[in-house]
Amino acid sequence: MKRDVDALLREQELDGLVVLGPGGHNPSLVYLLGQPAHLTDAWVVKKPDQMPVLYHWPMERDEAARVGVPTRDLTPFSRRRFLDAAQGDPFRAQVLQTLALLDDAGLGRGRIAVTGRVELGPHLSLWQAVQAERPGLRVEGRLAQQILRTARTTKDADEVARIRRMGALTVEVVGRVMDRLRGLRAGSDGLVVDAAGEVVTIGQVKAWVRRWVAELNAELPLAVIFAQGYDAGVPHSTGDDMAALRVGVPIVFDLFPQEAGGGYFYDFTRTWSLGYASERVQALHAQVEEAYRAALKVLRAGHAAETPYLAACEVLEGYGHPTPRTRPGTQEGFVHSLGHGLGLDIHEMPRLAAGQRDPLLPGMVVTVEPGLYYPRDEIGIRIEDTVWIDGAGQPQVLADFPHDLVLPLRG
Amino acid sequence: MKRDVDALLREQELDGLVVLGPGGHNPSLVYLLGQPAHLTDAWVVKKPDQMPVLYHWPMERDEAARVGVPTRDLTPFSRRRFLDAAQGDPFRAQVLQTLALLDDAGLGRGRIAVTGRVELGPHLSLWQAVQAERPGLRVEGRLAQQILRTARTTKDADEVARIRRMGALTVEVVGRVMDRLRGLRAGSDGLVVDAAGEVVTIGQVKAWVRRWVAELNAELPLAVIFAQGYDAGVPHSTGDDMAALRVGVPIVFDLFPQEAGGGYFYDFTRTWSLGYASERVQALHAQVEEAYRAALKVLRAGHAAETPYLAACEVLEGYGHPTPRTRPGTQEGFVHSLGHGLGLDIHEMPRLAAGQRDPLLPGMVVTVEPGLYYPRDEIGIRIEDTVWIDGAGQPQVLADFPHDLVLPLRG
Repeated sequence: MKRDVDALLREQELDGLVVLGPGGHNPSLVYLLGQPAHLTDAWVVKKPDQMPVLYHWPMERDEAARVGVPTRDLTPFSRRRFLDAAQGDPFRAQVLQTLALLDDAGLGRGRIAVTGRVELGPHLSLWQAVQAERPGLRVEGRLAQQILRTARTTKDADEVARIRRMGALTVEVVGRVMDRLRGLRAGSDGLVVDAAGEVVTIGQVKAWVRRWVAELNAELPLAVIFAQGYDAGVPHSTGDDMAALRVGVPIVFDLFPQEAGGGYFYDFTRTWSLGYASERVQALHAQVEEAYRAALKVLRAGHAAETPYLAACEVLEGYGHPTPRTRPGTQEGFVHSLGHGLGLDIHEMPRLAAGQRDPLLPGMVVTVEPGLYYPRDEIGIRIEDTVWIDGAGQPQVLADFPHDLVLPLRG
Repeated sequence: MKRDVDALLREQELDGLVVLGPGGHNPSLVYLLGQPAHLTDAWVVKKPDQMPVLYHWPMERDEAARVGVPTRDLTPFSRRRFLDAAQGDPFRAQVLQTLALLDDAGLGRGRIAVTGRVELGPHLSLWQAVQAERPGLRVEGRLAQQILRTARTTKDADEVARIRRMGALTVEVVGRVMDRLRGLRAGSDGLVVDAAGEVVTIGQVKAWVRRWVAELNAELPLAVIFAQGYDAGVPHSTGDDMAALRVGVPIVFDLFPQEAGGGYFYDFTRTWSLGYASERVQALHAQVEEAYRAALKVLRAGHAAETPYLAACEVLEGYGHPTPRTRPGTQEGFVHSLGHGLGLDIHEMPRLAAGQRDPLLPGMVVTVEPGLYYPRDEIGIRIEDTVWIDGAGQPQVLADFPHDLVLPLRG
């Protein structure tokens, strides 16, 4: 949890952590600030047992002040001011600028960790040059990510509340989509049509989703999966926007919105079949549901992270489906892991997958998403909820929504 | 331009360029692919005079195939497969995985450039270890960014068409906001009210904007600026969502949407005053308009990039306003540069600012955004258009919209 960052810094004998880059869509920085901020480019400096300090450009002073941590104006550190000392060489000026900033932060010597979501190339060169220039400084890359990843693996109450709010927003949008689809009817040729008799495309459905997510002030930075038939059978396929909705062909609807500006995610999937579902699809859906229940039952603090995955595999293998452990690399059956931690990134620790022996902990927030995929048969089925392991070590689904497969159409 | 990448690679004597990270919101990668793709994590390898090759995970094979460049499946390079050779050390496994990938791409030796928008920390350590492991390999960070930044400084016809489409979307949304605001009326206390007599907040206006941008299938990854009064006087302030709209107080509306998935941006600002504007605000707006015209007049291929900035300064200084060249670090008057290149990032080369002596070139797409800021007087004014320097070296505003200051209210 976030309060562990101080202990983790001390444990690694680090003098401080520097996180760079924009104030939004930059998980490490948003994590330290507690919220996304409208900052083009910032530095956040975190020393053990001290509040993080936010370095910001002067035009963004009000946005920086709103964050509620100590701030410092970057004006004295503009690169221009170092150009003379660097004899006009802009790269050298950036090295001097960086050292001046580190010195200002009291981190010009010693052992520091650096991270942030930035363009890699120039930073590879910059930090190499910074270290060459200042032998008394040791820059650790991996440790920054290790510390933050470790802390972020369990969520505090504020984080769980944010994820839960995104869950409420997610099921609100999914409910609106369901209502809208239920108002459609089956056309003559197996396609779904609206009141005017026009076919409805997957692209139209996605447009509703985008509109409703935006109205509710969230973002969809990673697209929307609304995939029918063959596409539903390929887990990360987003679906064909031009394709018309078809009756009786399963649709995987996977929605993962994020708080505006790059905050916390939610992750959620339902599989729907419009009008009716074939017996085989009904049977497979029931098997996925059974795997979901079996996994949830053992998703408890103290169990290994692989335990729920293995429980889902047991169920699905029992019905004769291939899984990665019975057929490595399979693209049919249960082809992926059971789930993943989720927070400021859509994929965080832990992984609910084979070989993950570390115990589940209270405060973890993970997806549970068993599925079955037979793309050649136009079948893909997945049921996914986001689940918090609460203070008592028990799983709590963070947003309730029915798992129903068949959405009856009008008339 | 993109076609220059081959020559730039050869010029720098690079054997290839490796771009890492997700398929969207990752400008270097999107640039090489020509479009955002729904890929969680990919490698794009570009060698001189060859098509880029896209390495993708198996679940994303269809999304990868849709891009239209040669693809390779990452399955043989999963980190798990290197764990044994790494004696269970995951970092060591990642080093071996990276070397295996480089070898597969024919870039395991020689001189390569690496970039991509990724979490910096782990990559600082990874690429240091990769080079230590393979003395015959030289990894250049800065060159990757230099080459791509140079190429991206001028846009080809496809890129200009994409930016122009985002411009059409931008003015569509701005027009809808204008129409909606014109339907409001002045309340008794200087606040703006709707038909039901309720005040309208800035947060409500931003919700309309978000909804319409989403409906039109674009994103707002960097927020919306709709800032009135004091906030309008601070260039990057996004405005106070809780504040009610006021009559006769200037509003800076700065909208910078991006193609869905992390593609091309547009950037656009108008300053509005609802109902009426004070004489001072009218005068300042006319001065900014004059600075805009003066800048546009000299925004031509062959002129130095600072020339339009200096032209705007001349006009505004002539009216007695401070600028960064008459009062360095000023937070009143014309406090920022004139504009910036724009493309897959909101800020690209060139900068239209003091000291920028390099010539403007056909194919550049830049913002022209003079402004005047007096936050203590509740005044901020900015007019911004995105402008393409066409093949004849002449400026073309990419989306037309009136510069009017006063939006009359109903009744």
